[in-house]
Amino acid sequence: MHEFEIIKKYFSKLAKNSSALKLNDDIFFERSKNLAISVDTYTEGTHFINFKKPHLVVKKILRSSLSDLICKGVIPKYYFISGSGNKKTFSKRNLKKVSRSLKQEQKKFNITLGGGDTVISNKLSFTIISLGFSKNVIYRNQAKKDDDIYVTGNLGDSYAGLNILKKKIITNRYLSSYFENRYYLPELYVNLSSKLFLFANSSIDISDGLITDLEKLINQQKLSFIIYLDKIPISNNLNKLIYKKKLRKLKFISQGDDYQILFTANKSKSRIITKFAKSLGIKISKIGKICSSSLKSQIIDEKGNKIALKNKGYYHTF
Amino acid sequence: MHEFEIIKKYFSKLAKNSSALKLNDDIFFERSKNLAISVDTYTEGTHFINFKKPHLVVKKILRSSLSDLICKGVIPKYYFISGSGNKKTFSKRNLKKVSRSLKQEQKKFNITLGGGDTVISNKLSFTIISLGFSKNVIYRNQAKKDDDIYVTGNLGDSYAGLNILKKKIITNRYLSSYFENRYYLPELYVNLSSKLFLFANSSIDISDGLITDLEKLINQQKLSFIIYLDKIPISNNLNKLIYKKKLRKLKFISQGDDYQILFTANKSKSRIITKFAKSLGIKISKIGKICSSSLKSQIIDEKGNKIALKNKGYYHTF
Repeated sequence: MHEFEIIKKYFSKLAKNSSALKLNDDIFFERSKNLAISVDTYTEGTHFINFKKPHLVVKKILRSSLSDLICKGVIPKYYFISGSGNKKTFSKRNLKKVSRSLKQEQKKFNITLGGGDTVISNKLSFTIISLGFSKNVIYRNQAKKDDDIYVTGNLGDSYAGLNILKKKIITNRYLSSYFENRYYLPELYVNLSSKLFLFANSSIDISDGLITDLEKLINQQKLSFIIYLDKIPISNNLNKLIYKKKLRKLKFISQGDDYQILFTANKSKSRIITKFAKSLGIKISKIGKICSSSLKSQIIDEKGNKIALKNKGYYHTF
Repeated sequence: MHEFEIIKKYFSKLAKNSSALKLNDDIFFERSKNLAISVDTYTEGTHFINFKKPHLVVKKILRSSLSDLICKGVIPKYYFISGSGNKKTFSKRNLKKVSRSLKQEQKKFNITLGGGDTVISNKLSFTIISLGFSKNVIYRNQAKKDDDIYVTGNLGDSYAGLNILKKKIITNRYLSSYFENRYYLPELYVNLSSKLFLFANSSIDISDGLITDLEKLINQQKLSFIIYLDKIPISNNLNKLIYKKKLRKLKFISQGDDYQILFTANKSKSRIITKFAKSLGIKISKIGKICSSSLKSQIIDEKGNKIALKNKGYYHTF
């Protein structure tokens, strides 16, 4: 069973409070307390490739958790971490690396550890809770017809990194190191976060893949979208890799783990978005448009042809 | 390495905010927001015996999480649950049972689901976050010399239940069912929770075992304790079982999973505690005294002799 079905069928009815946002918004938001919370579990082999680089893994999963708040306009203040591991994964050496990494992230994102747990398990996993205080959040399912669709940064670098780590793509040292870093260290746009309220109607972070997350963004709305493949931003390095290895851009842009912010905004906001992009030094690309539900969602390639995405992104099936 | 050492050595320095309570109080408490949070991970084989009775397991672990707040004077309002499991453990049948059980607990404890996550893993585990709002909490390490030591309910029933489930103790159907229920369904004293502020100097719930948790209660204080074995409350059924099977009471009273509230109070509070115990219908027993650090902590048996506890309780060692 698909994880979305599980939530809908077995858990939605348990969350009839307004703060749980119908379990359909990645976060919990109790307006009367200005309290926003995100809860995610990360397991070895699924959410991170392995634990050979504990200092990078812990940064990756922490950023993934913080991203859930940041993309909604909430600045994280605390995080909680509960780790399940064994003597080997939680060796002194590894714990030291994890601790040092967390300290660096605390400084970078101005957050602090609130608590957690450590338990013994042969399966390595972490649950991370991020918590912030905010008067408001930007929700899913608030996109309007004719909204432009925007995305921050570049897509696909993380997936290239994963393939290099898995040795499915072999390339030179420079590119390998670049992409592995993009896999482990997603960029978070804390500065942009609070600005989102000025123009975004709806937002989500790309964790499962551009198309999957776009569908999630409007999952309870009678809307569709049109996306232009050539507008989807990729890095110069990914362009190089695609050219060198004769790969297809399409393969890289909807695989997830990008942690870019995907948002929609009225077309009148175009200028202010460009302004903030420039002043904050953040790449923000307009990649498509929200359409009425009478159309089918579509992706248009460079030649103007409709294309079908076989693998829309990542999700869990039980 | 002992889990307490891990926290002290690698994580305490990351939690220098006042709300994390030095990672030494089972909960997080942000006073300015009246926000209290508890985070715990429960794994099959360690925190619960197996998943043959999903409806009972989920109640057990949820209550264990809620207990962390309740013993501190905080009434839980929300819980979050993140489950890691596979197709078998998260079958429709099991999910239905889990969902129904959670619904019952929500009604019983007046709580509601705030969010969570579901991920695929062959190792079954759950992380539960309990959250409540409170102006104050009762801390650890606030016991005073000469405080009386109190405990709610009965100890040892849960451990008897575990041994019966493990078939290490075989007894009749009636007793088996009683103890198994005590293992799965710890009683929580929500009504007593807010009253604790009227008399308790310091409190903790007994999850790891009476002696371990008593030591945790005063772990940063220069204090010791004296406990009288014959004052430690056990149920009539446990008395029966001990008599029938020629077991020792000592074996049962410090094994953990009791989820009773352990607290200390000035001796002048004795009368008010008796009053509340009566009016709320809760068994509360005075089991010993907090002493100066010049004495060694001790347990005194029925004959007035000092006894040594080999197995003080449960803790994780990595």
